[in-house]
Amino acid sequence: MGVVVQNIDRVDQAIIDGLRDCGVATVHEAQGRKGLLASYMNPIYKGAQVAGSAVTILAPPCDNWMVHVAIEQLQEGDILILGTTSPSDAGYFGDLLATSAQARGCVGLVIDAGVRDVKDLTQMNFPVWSKAIHAQGCIKETLGSVNIPVVCADQLVHPGDVVVADDDGVCVVAREEAADVLDKARARMALEEEKRTTLASGTLGIDMYNMRPRLAEKGLKYV
Amino acid sequence: MGVVVQNIDRVDQAIIDGLRDCGVATVHEAQGRKGLLASYMNPIYKGAQVAGSAVTILAPPCDNWMVHVAIEQLQEGDILILGTTSPSDAGYFGDLLATSAQARGCVGLVIDAGVRDVKDLTQMNFPVWSKAIHAQGCIKETLGSVNIPVVCADQLVHPGDVVVADDDGVCVVAREEAADVLDKARARMALEEEKRTTLASGTLGIDMYNMRPRLAEKGLKYV
Amino acid sequence: MGVVVQNIDRVDQAIIDGLRDCGVATVHEAQGRKGLLASYMNPIYKGAQVAGSAVTILAPPCDNWMVHVAIEQLQEGDILILGTTSPSDAGYFGDLLATSAQARGCVGLVIDAGVRDVKDLTQMNFPVWSKAIHAQGCIKETLGSVNIPVVCADQLVHPGDVVVADDDGVCVVAREEAADVLDKARARMALEEEKRTTLASGTLGIDMYNMRPRLAEKGLKYV
Amino acid sequence: MGVVVQNIDRVDQAIIDGLRDCGVATVHEAQGRKGLLASYMNPIYKGAQVAGSAVTILAPPCDNWMVHVAIEQLQEGDILILGTTSPSDAGYFGDLLATSAQARGCVGLVIDAGVRDVKDLTQMNFPVWSKAIHAQGCIKETLGSVNIPVVCADQLVHPGDVVVADDDGVCVVAREEAADVLDKARARMALEEEKRTTLASGTLGIDMYNMRPRLAEKGLKYV
Amino acid sequence: MGVVVQNIDRVDQAIIDGLRDCGVATVHEAQGRKGLLASYMNPIYKGAQVAGSAVTILAPPCDNWMVHVAIEQLQEGDILILGTTSPSDAGYFGDLLATSAQARGCVGLVIDAGVRDVKDLTQMNFPVWSKAIHAQGCIKETLGSVNIPVVCADQLVHPGDVVVADDDGVCVVAREEAADVLDKARARMALEEEKRTTLASGTLGIDMYNMRPRLAEKGLKYV
Amino acid sequence: MGVVVQNIDRVDQAIIDGLRDCGVATVHEAQGRKGLLASYMNPIYKGAQVAGSAVTILAPPCDNWMVHVAIEQLQEGDILILGTTSPSDAGYFGDLLATSAQARGCVGLVIDAGVRDVKDLTQMNFPVWSKAIHAQGCIKETLGSVNIPVVCADQLVHPGDVVVADDDGVCVVAREEAADVLDKARARMALEEEKRTTLASGTLGIDMYNMRPRLAEKGLKYV
Repeated sequence: MGVVVQNIDRVDQAIIDGLRDCGVATVHEAQGRKGLLASYMNPIYKGAQVAGSAVTILAPPCDNWMVHVAIEQLQEGDILILGTTSPSDAGYFGDLLATSAQARGCVGLVIDAGVRDVKDLTQMNFPVWSKAIHAQGCIKETLGSVNIPVVCADQLVHPGDVVVADDDGVCVVAREEAADVLDKARARMALEEEKRTTLASGTLGIDMYNMRPRLAEKGLKYV
Repeated sequence: MGVVVQNIDRVDQAIIDGLRDCGVATVHEAQGRKGLLASYMNPIYKGAQVAGSAVTILAPPCDNWMVHVAIEQLQEGDILILGTTSPSDAGYFGDLLATSAQARGCVGLVIDAGVRDVKDLTQMNFPVWSKAIHAQGCIKETLGSVNIPVVCADQLVHPGDVVVADDDGVCVVAREEAADVLDKARARMALEEEKRTTLASGTLGIDMYNMRPRLAEKGLKYV
Repeated sequence: MGVVVQNIDRVDQAIIDGLRDCGVATVHEAQGRKGLLASYMNPIYKGAQVAGSAVTILAPPCDNWMVHVAIEQLQEGDILILGTTSPSDAGYFGDLLATSAQARGCVGLVIDAGVRDVKDLTQMNFPVWSKAIHAQGCIKETLGSVNIPVVCADQLVHPGDVVVADDDGVCVVAREEAADVLDKARARMALEEEKRTTLASGTLGIDMYNMRPRLAEKGLKYV
Repeated sequence: MGVVVQNIDRVDQAIIDGLRDCGVATVHEAQGRKGLLASYMNPIYKGAQVAGSAVTILAPPCDNWMVHVAIEQLQEGDILILGTTSPSDAGYFGDLLATSAQARGCVGLVIDAGVRDVKDLTQMNFPVWSKAIHAQGCIKETLGSVNIPVVCADQLVHPGDVVVADDDGVCVVAREEAADVLDKARARMALEEEKRTTLASGTLGIDMYNMRPRLAEKGLKYV
Repeated sequence: MGVVVQNIDRVDQAIIDGLRDCGVATVHEAQGRKGLLASYMNPIYKGAQVAGSAVTILAPPCDNWMVHVAIEQLQEGDILILGTTSPSDAGYFGDLLATSAQARGCVGLVIDAGVRDVKDLTQMNFPVWSKAIHAQGCIKETLGSVNIPVVCADQLVHPGDVVVADDDGVCVVAREEAADVLDKARARMALEEEKRTTLASGTLGIDMYNMRPRLAEKGLKYV
Repeated sequence: MGVVVQNIDRVDQAIIDGLRDCGVATVHEAQGRKGLLASYMNPIYKGAQVAGSAVTILAPPCDNWMVHVAIEQLQEGDILILGTTSPSDAGYFGDLLATSAQARGCVGLVIDAGVRDVKDLTQMNFPVWSKAIHAQGCIKETLGSVNIPVVCADQLVHPGDVVVADDDGVCVVAREEAADVLDKARARMALEEEKRTTLASGTLGIDMYNMRPRLAEKGLKYV
């Protein structure tokens, strides 16, 4: 506790942008169905789709002091991701912190706790994925850490990992695997485009995927 | 398990359309306050209002194989309704399956589990009522059944029942009662229109419904 | 039980309007972080921001009789706030009751239970903050009370208290403290405007708030 | 609504007793992993293990009138199972009702709602599996039905089905399948006894089940 | 905030003891089904049955400073009851605080938050009803209040109210109504004893309560 | 995925035993309030108090294949700790697996999912801390990993970390910090023993901790 790691490695921005464009569902599949945050994480508004290098925060319950500390560590294109040492739905983050984070190029916040001023955040186009919306304020009494590995909504996040977030939720891609995952995600997307065309034309998935033999083998009966 | 019923009886489309226009709250009242799914079922976007003949799916946890099978059974105007053999918030359904379902005339999905690609589904105008939004993918290993009676969000649904869904939730109308329920729902709507006019003019409900005598009898005191 | 208090004191409308304009998060901070309803209370649509004098309802589970009784007590600018004697997610309130309430100048409803007809309520521009959206109807059998102190979503509300509600949730301001809270809230807003400008220019919060000495004193280490 | 079915078919008591002795986990496996109630159903005390013929109750929220009606339909060895038309955690059942049910030979209650007087029920040795323990009383105003198919904690139960309940939860066995399920469950138990002995001696499951080849084939790496 | 009320009125001990002996379910019924805390409040061990004069605590989230302050206000036979200004499941109370409270004659704790050292508390015979069991510690930074009205688990509690708690949950009786409620509760118990005997002999509730005419009138059909 | 790490470092057994004897609440405090699992983790029976070296399992939803694999990696004094790649309340573990684990010296299981056969497990004296009790069985189709870092109930656990569990919950101590944490925990316990004696004698905590000056400084008012 009480540590701020100042130099973290980040993934190349082009890779981050590529992952963002693939979206959460595709990236999650492409990396073997891992890294997905819990389904209780909701966007404060619909339609945002971002990706960024994780600047991580570990914070005590109802105490947002470390958010202020973390903002200094932000670089253009980063995303803040916050876990707590004990569950809290207090509002750790509002429009003032968002103004400051946005001024440093931050693309969003993922927080396993609460957020407030959501109307302002929406107008600022600053997306947040959170466990709660709550006006309850925080104190500034106890240290946490910045840019250490943190657990957020059931997933471990290392600083510099790529965090992808959209209406489907949030997915974490390990920094060292990001380039590889992007390749797989793009391949998947190309394939999906083909499939979409086929399915839209009326071809059935059970034919396109040739599922009938295996279904029969398992004993599916049509009556 | 492992059964697909291919021929199901459906309600006349005009009745289905009528029920859709009445909406969930009115239909639920009209049929004596039964058939309403649990309140944890949420639409992925606001404003959709649909009704269709239920094509039912019983699926294992985290396994969406039967959705592929069910799509073949869809006819124009049907709605998919899925229950699981064990609770799951995994994403059973995304834009590819929606493309295929929509190509067959499916008007929506009601699923006691998770859904993904919600941005795409929204753009496709394919409404879904679900327990969760989650990118978590499913496997295709274990059989379930299609068009057998299933429990979905606390309600029993038979194939061919009419499923009505809007911003208030989802309500199931038994196939054999649909025509009668529509009559009652329409009568209710006519009556409500009158009441709305009366109330909008400033008349109080306790007067319009003549509640004062019974309130007094029960002992209500004004101080 | 079974009591309707007819004469309640209200706060001056200008103060109520002032509190509304400050919003929930600011008002909550300004009054020392008290009065905030639980975070499970959600608006049925985004963007509404209202404040009003509380007309309180204590209602039995699944019984909305007292809502009808309460509407008679409404004056222009009031807000309905309902607690239950036992938890319920039934739909206590729909478009007919909203029509009647709106005809009497009611600005919204805060309800620790369910609401229905949300599409209509949205079109009517009648905002509701609720625990659930559920079409389940209520009966009218058991008395409750109107304009007595009620507990709603973890907070005690007295009739005539000011209820402020927006996308961040709902906050209750005691009637006798409202003027003072407004002064503090406005002072806070002025201050926040300054801070926002400073932060937007790139100045860090840890500098603006002069946090570095205390962080160092607590032992924060930069590595 | 408002129907009491008086004559229901029941399974032979020896089969019911056999299923009870196998327990929930074994019965659930033996019948192909179906019929299990949701995991939120908890016994009010540990150690009870019962099975009985289902006398089903469909009850309105917070209204236990139909429980009184159902008790008349009980025969020696029956178990009461209650679903609601809308969710409720009110206390539908206490020591008076238990006294009456026990006098008629009822072996327990499974209720998708609340129960009270749990200390008395424990002393009476009357087991209950419920969603909640709550002293909140019910009213007696609205009809429900007895001995119709009901949904209870995600499962459909027909009157006369066998309900098995123990510390692991509650499982429903269709009446017509009960004899067959018992055979399978007993075969399973015999097999498990053998396995238990083998495993207790230190033999590994991956060897006993010969899992190593398939694990290797799937690509499991030991490092 | 920041207020300790030192002199509170208490109910006569004989009345408190009487209410304890009646138990939560009976007391709750006797006072017209009010005052019952939410069903999520659980005893840390089964079998305790206590009643005491409420010494109330309003505490900030994750901050148990006020518990230390409240203990000084305890008299023989009191019970501590704690609400928070924002939800928390942290462990506000453990064996040291219990030792201190017990030394002053405190009979138990009711807390809308977490508790820890439950094994020790059980061995000490110090009963607690709580929302959570959690080892998470609290800080001592922010003032709350002692012996002001607080909301705890959906109920308003005034200092000096009688708090009754057993395996069915927790019920609050207003100080000024306690004697009257005891009379009604005792009358109820006597009546229940009679009913129990009647029901145990096999007489049905629907006969004992003469429900058949009203059931018929409502339209109940036996088939 | 699909990796089994066979050689992990473990902490000296005397240290593990020492941590077990201190208990979760003390250990958690001693290491600076970190490492505590979420409060939804419950013991299947009360009174167990264990500590062991973590053998970690990362498992797919509803798939317990990796538990079989993990058992081979167990040594005397180890504890199994399981996280999932997607939430599940299925029963991953029952009496057969427990028999096998116990045969290898395993002292318990901590599982962020469900468990079954709890009556047998209780009789075997094999303690489990779990998110759910559910008879729902698992399949064996998809690989996970053994002895990699896993997230379990909000905490990161490395193989070989010390897992301490009792009635208060579960706490993880990093392997390299275990000796130091034990020292601090023992110091704490000694201190607590003194405090307990002082408090039992009637001395108030606010005096023993000398809280009065700081309370006064913060503005606490006695009225």
